[in-house]
This record gives sequence, structure tokens and C-alpha cells, in this order.
Amino acid sequence: MNRIITISRQFGSGGRTIGKEVAKKLGIPCYDSELILKIAEKSGLSKEYIENYGEHAPSASWLSNIVGRDYNGRSVRDDLWLVQHEIITELAQKESCVIVGRCADHILKNTANCLTVFVHASPEKRAKRIVEIYGESDEKPEKRLIDKDKRRKSYYQFYTDSTWGDATKYDISLDSGKFGIDKCVSIIAQLY
Amino acid sequence: MNRIITISRQFGSGGRTIGKEVAKKLGIPCYDSELILKIAEKSGLSKEYIENYGEHAPSASWLSNIVGRDYNGRSVRDDLWLVQHEIITELAQKESCVIVGRCADHILKNTANCLTVFVHASPEKRAKRIVEIYGESDEKPEKRLIDKDKRRKSYYQFYTDSTWGDATKYDISLDSGKFGIDKCVSIIAQLY
Repeated sequence: MNRIITISRQFGSGGRTIGKEVAKKLGIPCYDSELILKIAEKSGLSKEYIENYGEHAPSASWLSNIVGRDYNGRSVRDDLWLVQHEIITELAQKESCVIVGRCADHILKNTANCLTVFVHASPEKRAKRIVEIYGESDEKPEKRLIDKDKRRKSYYQFYTDSTWGDATKYDISLDSGKFGIDKCVSIIAQLY
Repeated sequence: MNRIITISRQFGSGGRTIGKEVAKKLGIPCYDSELILKIAEKSGLSKEYIENYGEHAPSASWLSNIVGRDYNGRSVRDDLWLVQHEIITELAQKESCVIVGRCADHILKNTANCLTVFVHASPEKRAKRIVEIYGESDEKPEKRLIDKDKRRKSYYQFYTDSTWGDATKYDISLDSGKFGIDKCVSIIAQLY
């Protein structure tokens, strides 16, 4: 049976980098932006649309919930969720791999041999990291963190009915700000 | 500076055993029931009282909140919290050690060089473990788990104003049911 590592992460915690490094160390693929492209190809939705809405929960506004629904009452975002669900399930059947984000831990919880990881860090460390990686922007890094995490949290909650960041939902949770990227990579690879 | 490991744990997850094994491996003391005795000696409260109320939040009943308060408006449990707070702070100043439970992670968060750990496991694994360790009782193991965790959670919340089991509050969280006690011990000792 294939063995999968799923990585959920706070924005700026380095979870994506950790995923890539773990995959490299284990000699297995890591799906992240690649996954986004696969989703785009399959669903016919534009890459920009997916990057903007891939991990955002449906809006609570009644208007946006009426506009853009098909005859089954599904929104474009619901369709995206279904396509994503299918792709992640297929990836896990095809090969051992690392999957970053996209609720993969939840999608695979009953079907695959999974190691589920949550990566977090203090707001100070993450603010520092996002400026280093993504550069400065008009918005303060602290505000960017809060916005992005709020969206990820609400997306996760909406589609999985579980709490994002609840320790009991993951096999292991790590503070990458405390341990550093390399140590996190080595622990995850060790547990694989 | 002394280095402290604090272990918070779900009931039946084996967190106490993990704490003792880690301490043994590192050659440092582990405070748990020893700590309870120290608290008892210092506060003059009976060992039974502390075992029953040591990790239970104050009752929400107005009656129990009026009865048993001193002239400062503190309840016996608040006094117990203060004594506990003082003992844990002193222990951390005195020597490197492992401290299991008692909100030690929160008490030491700004004063000590701490590795904070949360140990959890699925309800099925924990139910099995508590029957193995504590034996059968009239109450179903699933009910014992829920009761005990509810109390720990509410105690933690009341005195620390944080969420018990929120991954971001701990340096590392581990599913002992998935990895087993020995693997958890080895990872924690490695990170020390």
C-alpha cells in the first residue's frame, strides 16, 4: 500500500518547504502547485481562479451563494472541492507521496495509509518568514497572516466539519519556529 | 539554565508513562504524583482533596462559588492553583525536569526554557488502555474518557484562558496510539 504524508500548515510556517524537503529526502513526489495545475487541467477552471479560491470557504453572503450555482445547487467552489477530492484520492492510490494543504488529511483519512502533520509557528516568526519569502507588501505581515489563516481555517471547517489546528486531528504537530525547518524534516522522515 | 519538558495529555493516552520514560532516558526527575504530595504538604490540603480537585475547574454553581471562599474571595481551588503555580515555578528554577499535567506549560511559558508536549490518541486506543491500566469499572471506559477530558479541558481553560489541545500552544503534539509509547519517548528525548 502507498504511504502518504499530508501536511497542513499555518501561513508562513514553512510547511510547504518542509513538505518538499521531506519528499526529496524520501525520494517521493510532493504535490502542491503541481496539484493546483492538475486540478486546473481537469476542471477547466482557470489557474488564477483556483489560486484565489482553492482554500477559501464559500462566502456566507446570500447573494454569492445564489449566483453561480449549477442546476444541482452546487457552486463553482463546491465543484472545485469535488475535483480536488477526486485528484487527491487518485494520487494516493497511484503512488507514495507528500501532499501539502487542500484538506488532504481529511480526504484520505479512511482510505489511505497516511501520516498527517500540522506545522505551525508563532506569529512573530511567521511574519518574519513571509517578508523574507514573499517580500514586503502594503499590508502589514501580521494582517496577512491573520487573513490567510482565517480563510484556511474556515475552508477546512466548511468542508471537513472538523477544527483546523486541533492537535487531536493530526498524528504529529510541530512548531517549526522553535525547532527549525531541518529538524522538522528529519522528524517527519523518521516517522514515515 | 534548566531545561524543562512539560507534558499535557488526554486521559488514557499514556502521557504520564511517556513523561516518566523520557525522564529516565535523560536522567532527570519527573514530577507527577510526587508533585501532588509536595502540594499537599505545602498547602495543608489533604492528598485526597488534591487528587479529586487538582485538575478540575471551579464549579459553575453559584452556591459552590460562595461557600468556601476566604476574605479575598478566593476559593480553596484558587488557593490550590496558586500553591501549584509556586511549586512548579520553583521546580523549574531548581533543576531540569519533566512535569506532567497541572498546566505547567502555561505556568512556565515566559520564565523557563521549556519543551511543551501534548499527547493524545483515538478514543478507541485510550479506552483500551484505561481498562488495561486501571481495570474495569461500572462506568464504560468511553464515558470515563469523556468525563476526565472535559474536566481537564475546563480546568485548563479556566486558569490559562487558552484552549487545551490547540496544536499551536505546544511545541510538539503526538498521537501515542499511532506511534506507540517508545517512539514518542525517543522523539521527545531527541528534541530536548
